[in-house]
Amino acid sequence: MTTNSTQPARGTRDFLPADVRRRTYVIDVVRSVYERYGFEPLETPAFENIETLLGKYGDEGNQLIFKILKRGEHEASGAADLALRYDLTVPLARVVAQYQNELPRYFKRYQIQPVWRADRPARGRFREFYQCDVDAVGSTSPLVEVEVISAVTDVLTTLGFDDFAIRLNHRRLLSALLEGAGIAAEKHNDALVSIDKLDKIGNDGVVADLGGRGIDGAAAGRLLASFAMRGPEALASLGLTVSGHESGAAAVRELEAIVQLAAATPAGPRLQIDPSLARGLSYYTGAIMEIAVAGIGSLGGGGRYDNLVGMFLGRDIPACGFSLGLERIIVVMTERGMFPASIAAGTVDIVVTCMDDDSRAEALRFASELRAGAMRVDVFPEASRKFDKPLKYASARGARVMGIFGENERTRGEVSIRNLDTREQQTVPRGRAAEVVSQMLNRGT
Amino acid sequence: MTTNSTQPARGTRDFLPADVRRRTYVIDVVRSVYERYGFEPLETPAFENIETLLGKYGDEGNQLIFKILKRGEHEASGAADLALRYDLTVPLARVVAQYQNELPRYFKRYQIQPVWRADRPARGRFREFYQCDVDAVGSTSPLVEVEVISAVTDVLTTLGFDDFAIRLNHRRLLSALLEGAGIAAEKHNDALVSIDKLDKIGNDGVVADLGGRGIDGAAAGRLLASFAMRGPEALASLGLTVSGHESGAAAVRELEAIVQLAAATPAGPRLQIDPSLARGLSYYTGAIMEIAVAGIGSLGGGGRYDNLVGMFLGRDIPACGFSLGLERIIVVMTERGMFPASIAAGTVDIVVTCMDDDSRAEALRFASELRAGAMRVDVFPEASRKFDKPLKYASARGARVMGIFGENERTRGEVSIRNLDTREQQTVPRGRAAEVVSQMLNRGT
Repeated sequence: MTTNSTQPARGTRDFLPADVRRRTYVIDVVRSVYERYGFEPLETPAFENIETLLGKYGDEGNQLIFKILKRGEHEASGAADLALRYDLTVPLARVVAQYQNELPRYFKRYQIQPVWRADRPARGRFREFYQCDVDAVGSTSPLVEVEVISAVTDVLTTLGFDDFAIRLNHRRLLSALLEGAGIAAEKHNDALVSIDKLDKIGNDGVVADLGGRGIDGAAAGRLLASFAMRGPEALASLGLTVSGHESGAAAVRELEAIVQLAAATPAGPRLQIDPSLARGLSYYTGAIMEIAVAGIGSLGGGGRYDNLVGMFLGRDIPACGFSLGLERIIVVMTERGMFPASIAAGTVDIVVTCMDDDSRAEALRFASELRAGAMRVDVFPEASRKFDKPLKYASARGARVMGIFGENERTRGEVSIRNLDTREQQTVPRGRAAEVVSQMLNRGT
Repeated sequence: MTTNSTQPARGTRDFLPADVRRRTYVIDVVRSVYERYGFEPLETPAFENIETLLGKYGDEGNQLIFKILKRGEHEASGAADLALRYDLTVPLARVVAQYQNELPRYFKRYQIQPVWRADRPARGRFREFYQCDVDAVGSTSPLVEVEVISAVTDVLTTLGFDDFAIRLNHRRLLSALLEGAGIAAEKHNDALVSIDKLDKIGNDGVVADLGGRGIDGAAAGRLLASFAMRGPEALASLGLTVSGHESGAAAVRELEAIVQLAAATPAGPRLQIDPSLARGLSYYTGAIMEIAVAGIGSLGGGGRYDNLVGMFLGRDIPACGFSLGLERIIVVMTERGMFPASIAAGTVDIVVTCMDDDSRAEALRFASELRAGAMRVDVFPEASRKFDKPLKYASARGARVMGIFGENERTRGEVSIRNLDTREQQTVPRGRAAEVVSQMLNRGT
């Protein structure tokens, strides 16, 4: 017998039952909050035609796309015609273009599906991971940004997070600050890459990094000084700084509207203007935001991207969205013990076991009866006079009760019911057994 | 502006919100029934190392596997190192081998995930489709078969199916019947392929098909005669027919045990012995079963496969499972109008709209208040004195109430509440508005 390797592919994970339960718990919270905000579920295929994805994520992104070989006679060519989904935003843009006559003009969707990136696997970085995206397409109103960050705030507080902030900035304000610092337009993308590292490498690191990209120390100093404008007065100071810059000043007014409207929602107390927030993706055109948890880093981010749908539709449709990092959220919740006890508790309520083969039919009948009452019931498959195996199994499943069927019970029309918490066992008439089990289970909760 | 194609890849589908709701409804039923039977959730990665999948599904299966190109410097080689999941059974066998020390000896899991096959797309046949699998690993007891078909029965009746049967046969009984008909062992696989078509091409078709495979008409006639043994006395007749064939007789005894035990469960009245049931997959070793709906065909099938885990582990572990065809179930339920009305009903309860920008903050505050009470609330993003757009939008979303904030309402501390069913509109004090909306929504349900 030759055997195969039993590892999952590099950078991917198997989710055993306890893992799935934790993931399902988080996803159900995300889903129910997003539904309360009027977002609708969307799902798209795991793979797209390769042209749909190529060229949307920059050169680095292109390298990380998993490509699928052509099939049949074309397989030998080594060419690829399909590619695995890299994020949920490009498929959304395609869907909005494809179904423009079926979807409402103002379309709010959430999407919770895995994406695949051929990154080098590292601690906490996987090649298959879930994204939880929420996006609203079809309006330029700042109310959209506010609804999105308010929904994200409600997700996190429902999950039990209480120490997060939402950093808020604007791509056009950032451009104005770069210009104001005397950095030439063709250096702006380079500068954004440096700024994105500010949290990790600090002011001195960014000055050095900018220097390496041909941006002199004086300009870097002016830029970093403008980033110091934070706190309650930040928008007033920033407004003065960019008052002579048309689109920069408009960006500050948009941020003011977002802050003012957010004050009426749960997101209000979380907002922190942060002129240094850059966000990596190139498609953002307006407000950008990111969730920061002290000592943890980002749990997700998003922003306005008014041009992406146009790459599929031929005319622009404004959009704004947010992507929550499910994997990171689960890691932090696990480390902090934030999952409710019910997630880790027993996965069946009762295990039914038989002492002889002739008792199996009655054991199954009893199991059916309990299941009709919505109990989670397992039947141990092998009949045995010894209880060690079924007891070990019941303990592994976290069952609190065991139902025992043997010859004695069968001839007398009874069932033995064992409380696995107290180890007490009683024999009760078959007709009362379901009620006894139900009481035993309810007593403990 | 150059635009990309907006179609999903060939053979795949986008699921718009109404589609996702239908799918989620079915999946939630499957999940809750399987949990009541003590099955635990498992999820595995979308792709596996290519060796894990190759050689498990026969030559034809190998052709249908989507292969993923190596990356980076190896991309140009045209070689593949990964492949998309083709079913959920092989990944289960790998998982059981990999985590044998972490999983209970008797492991019951369900798994609901998409699989991918490069089949030629046709009506109702897709390249990406969901499977809902339930399997129990670690026991040879016929109680396992009974628990599996009982769970499947409960899933289908909970979804509203009442006209299905569960066809039951046994691979070793089938072998005995083939031998008994005088068909040589090396022709058995060929014969199984012919028999599998019986429903489609009838007795005469099968005789011709067998003839084409070098099986003479007399043998074919004997085989088809043995398939006529159905109904309540089928097992007794089949037992007599194969009484001289050791493993055939043992197979009949196993089927008798399954039928006897199933009588104690919801599956009992559904079972139909059908000696002609063949099931395509080569890995089955014992009982095989299939759900038949009159005029529709199969909604899924399964059986016992005691050797597959051994291909990964190096020693055999018995297993038995069933795969429900989610896509087919959804098609039939849609055609028959079996989805509850709530699935198609409104996706938000109330749309809040503003007549001027200054009303937006109060509108958002009101929305937050309603959401805290678990209502599904949408805020129309553009302020307008005209109601045609928000009304059209509210109608598209299926909202039954609209909340209106304008200058009059704002100055008087009021909200206008419009019942979209009756078109009645009233203006109420802001403090009472949530209660009025709640009553309006409850009245109609």
